Amino acid sequence: MPLSAITDPWVRENTVGRVEDIHDQGDGSFVVRVSLGAATTGGEAGQLLNMLFGNSSIHDHISLLDADLPHTLTTEFPGPGLGEAGLRNLVGAPTRPLTCGALKPQGLSSGALAELAYRLALGRLDFIKDDHGLADQAYSPFEERVARVARAIAKANAETGHTTCYVPSLTGNLDQLRHQAKFAHGHGAACVMIAPMIAGLPALTALRRDFPHLGIFVHPAMAGAARITPPLLLGRLFRMMGADATIFPNHGGRFGYSPQTCRELAEAARSEWHGMAPSLPVPAGGMTTERVDEMLDFYGPHVILLIGGDLLAAGPRLTQETLSFTTKVAGHVFV
Amino acid sequence: MPLSAITDPWVRENTVGRVEDIHDQGDGSFVVRVSLGAATTGGEAGQLLNMLFGNSSIHDHISLLDADLPHTLTTEFPGPGLGEAGLRNLVGAPTRPLTCGALKPQGLSSGALAELAYRLALGRLDFIKDDHGLADQAYSPFEERVARVARAIAKANAETGHTTCYVPSLTGNLDQLRHQAKFAHGHGAACVMIAPMIAGLPALTALRRDFPHLGIFVHPAMAGAARITPPLLLGRLFRMMGADATIFPNHGGRFGYSPQTCRELAEAARSEWHGMAPSLPVPAGGMTTERVDEMLDFYGPHVILLIGGDLLAAGPRLTQETLSFTTKVAGHVFV
Repeated sequence: MPLSAITDPWVRENTVGRVEDIHDQGDGSFVVRVSLGAATTGGEAGQLLNMLFGNSSIHDHISLLDADLPHTLTTEFPGPGLGEAGLRNLVGAPTRPLTCGALKPQGLSSGALAELAYRLALGRLDFIKDDHGLADQAYSPFEERVARVARAIAKANAETGHTTCYVPSLTGNLDQLRHQAKFAHGHGAACVMIAPMIAGLPALTALRRDFPHLGIFVHPAMAGAARITPPLLLGRLFRMMGADATIFPNHGGRFGYSPQTCRELAEAARSEWHGMAPSLPVPAGGMTTERVDEMLDFYGPHVILLIGGDLLAAGPRLTQETLSFTTKVAGHVFV
Repeated sequence: MPLSAITDPWVRENTVGRVEDIHDQGDGSFVVRVSLGAATTGGEAGQLLNMLFGNSSIHDHISLLDADLPHTLTTEFPGPGLGEAGLRNLVGAPTRPLTCGALKPQGLSSGALAELAYRLALGRLDFIKDDHGLADQAYSPFEERVARVARAIAKANAETGHTTCYVPSLTGNLDQLRHQAKFAHGHGAACVMIAPMIAGLPALTALRRDFPHLGIFVHPAMAGAARITPPLLLGRLFRMMGADATIFPNHGGRFGYSPQTCRELAEAARSEWHGMAPSLPVPAGGMTTERVDEMLDFYGPHVILLIGGDLLAAGPRLTQETLSFTTKVAGHVFV
């Protein structure tokens, strides 16, 4: 909109973005700070994203580095439902770092996935999440899979006395997400996972409000890396929209996040912010049991460590390797 | 998932991605063609996107160039509801290029926007869309705005004998989108606009199925430029998910798309493809009446030309400038 076409002084003053400062980085790039009117968001998740980066996303030389959100705006969004304390309560682990495994590959039958879940749960994991590739496919339809996996995990829990919590992956539109969340909860899954940049941020917020007692893990699929900084999107914004735990690629794995990005993301997810419950960072993406001590020293105890494929690669030794992982996490001494 | 951990031969054969070929571009980049099993999508919009670019979006050195979708998969999605023919029917223009204006800036009251809409409609536009920044904000709440703007356009239509069709912008989660679509339709708006990468692709598909007779314009906010090629995302995929018209930044405007990208996008939106109705390309983003002839020679008659801010900048001459635009489009002689 050409500024010259805006004749209303109230609009010029209150809804036109204002360039606060421009800092020449000296490498051909500039950090530009722009103020936007909070009223332009209408207190809605999608419109907030639209104001922050909607059309700017079309300019491939622009990245969204950070956003300083006023208290009045943050309180219009639900924030985590369970938060760190609620997730810990679910699995009866008040202080130690938590653990998570993953069910995959897609293509396995619901029965085969349930068998893997059983053997992983015998290894005393805190959470077992569906791979985000598990949706509602013919080879393992959502309801059949969730019912069978939940039953398998309950069986293992009865045998170990430990509580492993199942985190099924929800997909589709809001009707489908709600239906799946209800089904999952009815079958004993106390948490679910969604990918907000695929389902849409408005769907995350709606699900959070409809199911205040459900733990929500969020997955970074389609969240990109380069255009909105991960600490802002995967840390702060997802938390504000309702995530209890945020999965992201740890440094030194299959993906390219730097240690500093990971540290900032973890802090954005869990540090004190507008009185919102802390959510938990879940570093993942090619992690191994060998890295447990290093990761715990890096992230501290307020974390969920997630090992997916590397545990599954253990084949017949799946339960043993999982036990090695969970034992190592539980035994880690923080210096 | 390490391939070594996949022991099920059916999974290896049917759901593991297969690298078909790798072409060294000679500039340090490679074009890699990967086959995926169609069954992995479960016939769902979000999961299709997840399979195409979910985790790959996290690698900032990977772009999604194209996707060759089999007929059996494309027919699982709704495609355009009205398509080009239906949009033309709405405004009684069977062959000539179509025109569109935009209501903005946000911050104006519903009454002020309605007044602009009235004066734009007197200029005999085919469509007047809300700016995608108009959501459900306190200064022009959705229902109040849509009711007043629709009434203003109807008044202008009664005076000119021309049909201008209002395209309000819908925002929020699927409940809100449905409510707004119903409200808009009930107030005479035959089309609506949504930004699928903000609302979520699954929401677009759901809206399309729920409102088969509503024209849907899609907006590229948050659709990026660099990571999924615009012809694939804004052209083909949005069309397949239900868009009747797709708005995108024309070359030589405020944004950086090249002429070739624009041409490919337009062709992806409207060319024969799996028996799906053609949707219409809507080049926009800083366009002016001066560019009408050049744009029509470039895109041909199967197009909606959109001029937003440049018309609004005319101030008291708004109707006159709009008439110049629509007269020029109607009078263009294709060579």
